[in-house]
Amino acid sequence: MEINKETISEWLKNLQDAICLSLENADGGSKFEEENWIRKEGGGGRTRIIKEGNIIEKGGVLFSAVSGDTPDFLFKESAHSASPQPSPEEREFSIRPQFFATGVSIVIHPKNPMVPIIHMNIRYFEMDGGVKWLGGGIDLTPHYIFDDDAIFFHSQLKNLCDKHHKDYYSKFKKWADDYFYISHRKETRGIGGIFFDRLNTEGNMNFEKNFAFWQDVGKAFAPTYTELITRNKHKSFTEKNKDWQLLRRGRYVEFNLIYDKGTKFGLETNGRVESILMSLPKTAGWEYDFKPEKNSEEEMTLSLLKKDIDWI
Amino acid sequence: MEINKETISEWLKNLQDAICLSLENADGGSKFEEENWIRKEGGGGRTRIIKEGNIIEKGGVLFSAVSGDTPDFLFKESAHSASPQPSPEEREFSIRPQFFATGVSIVIHPKNPMVPIIHMNIRYFEMDGGVKWLGGGIDLTPHYIFDDDAIFFHSQLKNLCDKHHKDYYSKFKKWADDYFYISHRKETRGIGGIFFDRLNTEGNMNFEKNFAFWQDVGKAFAPTYTELITRNKHKSFTEKNKDWQLLRRGRYVEFNLIYDKGTKFGLETNGRVESILMSLPKTAGWEYDFKPEKNSEEEMTLSLLKKDIDWI
Repeated sequence: MEINKETISEWLKNLQDAICLSLENADGGSKFEEENWIRKEGGGGRTRIIKEGNIIEKGGVLFSAVSGDTPDFLFKESAHSASPQPSPEEREFSIRPQFFATGVSIVIHPKNPMVPIIHMNIRYFEMDGGVKWLGGGIDLTPHYIFDDDAIFFHSQLKNLCDKHHKDYYSKFKKWADDYFYISHRKETRGIGGIFFDRLNTEGNMNFEKNFAFWQDVGKAFAPTYTELITRNKHKSFTEKNKDWQLLRRGRYVEFNLIYDKGTKFGLETNGRVESILMSLPKTAGWEYDFKPEKNSEEEMTLSLLKKDIDWI
Repeated sequence: MEINKETISEWLKNLQDAICLSLENADGGSKFEEENWIRKEGGGGRTRIIKEGNIIEKGGVLFSAVSGDTPDFLFKESAHSASPQPSPEEREFSIRPQFFATGVSIVIHPKNPMVPIIHMNIRYFEMDGGVKWLGGGIDLTPHYIFDDDAIFFHSQLKNLCDKHHKDYYSKFKKWADDYFYISHRKETRGIGGIFFDRLNTEGNMNFEKNFAFWQDVGKAFAPTYTELITRNKHKSFTEKNKDWQLLRRGRYVEFNLIYDKGTKFGLETNGRVESILMSLPKTAGWEYDFKPEKNSEEEMTLSLLKKDIDWI
């Protein structure tokens, strides 16, 4: 199959279908509801939201494919790369190169605090003049960190990375540690995962190879997360566990609203607010200067929200 | 009394005391707890937090007075004003003008959704070379907007403004509408109030007069808010009202984490995180694409979250 924007977005739609089906089966109680939306300037999306399930309290699996005049900040963003810049004429007369961006984004907030929050995103961007980027990532935010699950999660990612390049896992794992970081708290959002962007400007110009890796990231999501659901869904929990879940969700909100580039990009470019902010949990909480009890599971989890832990 | 940084911060501490006392009396159930903190680079603060009261679920009344080398961004910030810029030598050898900043900041989140959230802040800033600024504001965020309360609140502010300058209320009311605005939602945070900054660079160089106005803003807080508590604390509410309160608090979180300059300033300059984020509610919520019922009180409230409403 030829790889072009049509085939890529078609593949992403099929991925969205497959992931929604897996999640519905794993949940066993609720179904996704779909909303199609159109972007005035070009393109649109297919937002799928699930709520009040047996396992999933609130989650979204979003597909979008948007296009149009390349906004200014994308030139600024790409100024350090080899991408074409608009000529003075293009700027003056607003003859702008066209861009196309498509992707799938997922955030799942479970009810049971023993089941982790997960996020996955894969995206493709192209612009007139031959610019093509692939980006993506998966990261896990357990409310309580269990070693076995952390090892399983990172091994899944390492295995898929190793099939494509021996350096990918270590490089993209570090990138995730740096990206999913809540600076003001000096905490990582969770146990990280992998993150990568502009794969084609990173010295590797083999688009087909990059694309195959990127597809594997998308395909890894469902089996990895449904396994984590199966392992933890029957665990019991207390009110105290639920209170802690609220605080961890509060941190998730802090990361997404303050640091997440996708959220910022979306809100600043007048994106569809309800789709962008589907990543926020049904409820979250903040307590002044909360300190977990000595030697509690909460304290243990906090002590592991650090960069550069070798989970495997 | 001579007005200088010592007498200003002393006055602010007394204001903090008086406000805490009024709020404890109005609450009748809980007391403030105090935490003193020291800033490594100079100065510190007195953070007072109240929680789980009869009326107040979570609130803070914060005093701080910090000093030290003026950070870079403050030069940038003041580039459009008449403030002195560092000379090349000062930049090169890091001989920096000293700054001093002091203020009181308040956010109160009540339990009962019929009682409004309130915020107040007054601040004073000075820098070597004679720069002096006064700033502040009060704004109200009712979960449900009641006309009588909105008229009372804005009349209180107009009365205090009118004592000092005939244009203050209209000017500072507009400033609050523009400042307390959640752009991506196209909603104001609440019914606004007044907001002003750099009073001394606004063409009015009479510091004593400005200071008297600024003091009146601080003094207006307690009688205004305790009246709003008295009016609404006995109103009954339902689960549906509590759910709506969660969503309104979610919007409050969005404003504070995405737009509020004080929060941004604090987090970026490595301020005391727990004091900065005391403004966040104990709990908040998000629901995908929530639409209030036709002709409901929630819809009525939403319809009034607009700029430029003449409340009086």
